[in-house]
Amino acid sequence: MALHPELRKQFGDSVLSQEHEYLIENCFLHYTTKKNEILLQKGAVARYVFFVIKGCLRVFITDEDGNESTRFLILENNFGTAFPSFILHEPSNAIVQSLGTSELLMLSYQDREKLFQEIPCWESVYRKSIERDYIASIQRIESFITLNAAQRYESLLKNNPRLVQRLPAKIIADYLGINRETLSRLKSRK
Amino acid sequence: MALHPELRKQFGDSVLSQEHEYLIENCFLHYTTKKNEILLQKGAVARYVFFVIKGCLRVFITDEDGNESTRFLILENNFGTAFPSFILHEPSNAIVQSLGTSELLMLSYQDREKLFQEIPCWESVYRKSIERDYIASIQRIESFITLNAAQRYESLLKNNPRLVQRLPAKIIADYLGINRETLSRLKSRK
Repeated sequence: MALHPELRKQFGDSVLSQEHEYLIENCFLHYTTKKNEILLQKGAVARYVFFVIKGCLRVFITDEDGNESTRFLILENNFGTAFPSFILHEPSNAIVQSLGTSELLMLSYQDREKLFQEIPCWESVYRKSIERDYIASIQRIESFITLNAAQRYESLLKNNPRLVQRLPAKIIADYLGINRETLSRLKSRK
Repeated sequence: MALHPELRKQFGDSVLSQEHEYLIENCFLHYTTKKNEILLQKGAVARYVFFVIKGCLRVFITDEDGNESTRFLILENNFGTAFPSFILHEPSNAIVQSLGTSELLMLSYQDREKLFQEIPCWESVYRKSIERDYIASIQRIESFITLNAAQRYESLLKNNPRLVQRLPAKIIADYLGINRETLSRLKSRK
């Protein structure tokens, strides 16, 4: 099996030898989830970073009363995981779940390190992915402080229109930090 | 002037040639702030990433009514900036301010790129700094969802005791998302 084209795209114009392509291909495990499968339980240590080929993963946390709060979504052609747990090897606060079924490539911490050592341009590919995630995380925090519900919905619709079409209203409302009635009202205005 | 020892420490065990040390030293501009100087205004584009040698920088945003909300603090021996603006070259939502006077090393976007090209281990140094910041950002979001005010204060006291001693109560309270009366009550319990 050749290196998945969407994963290859992450390396941009970098020249990869056949040997390097083979190494990358062998480090990423292909996995198709069950419907709504939990990929990481709360309290477990995240062993993998996920690259989503098809589908979507939700990273969420729960409070003392069991209320769920969606922290972020890992969309197609993006890397992601319960990041603090993955890097620090600590039990995860967050739960990682597939929304529906997803097709994934999974990279273990050890294999991530191996790629850093063996493939110089992997540092840059991975760093840019982290930068994007970190920016998304900051923009999300800022949106909660500077935008109202309608503006947050507008922003999501502009930046991720497919998300709004594909995901259940419950998840979208939770992601935006609004209740479902408010979301229905915002949707009906369009 | 030689490479600042605290900046050198960021490179860990990596061997740096004298030429590389010289290049790094020349890319980082030394700057001492005025007291409480604003280093980046809202709406301006962040041109620099800061490395704090002495002091502390506050990154905060304001809502429509001018209320300030501290998004994060850049402590000594850490890199930081208004990150989305710096990477995307877009006007910043956030304001960067020195708390008191600070001694900084400033790296422009162009010089950051130059270091990526010239000094292979810089990718790894920088990537690890971004990972730490991203983790801190996630842990902060999670703490607002999973911990109460007292637990957030405990956590800050455990992880950054110097912060609590050094910074004005107003900033600490804002950082923890609690009011000053609650903070005084928590402090007096110790």
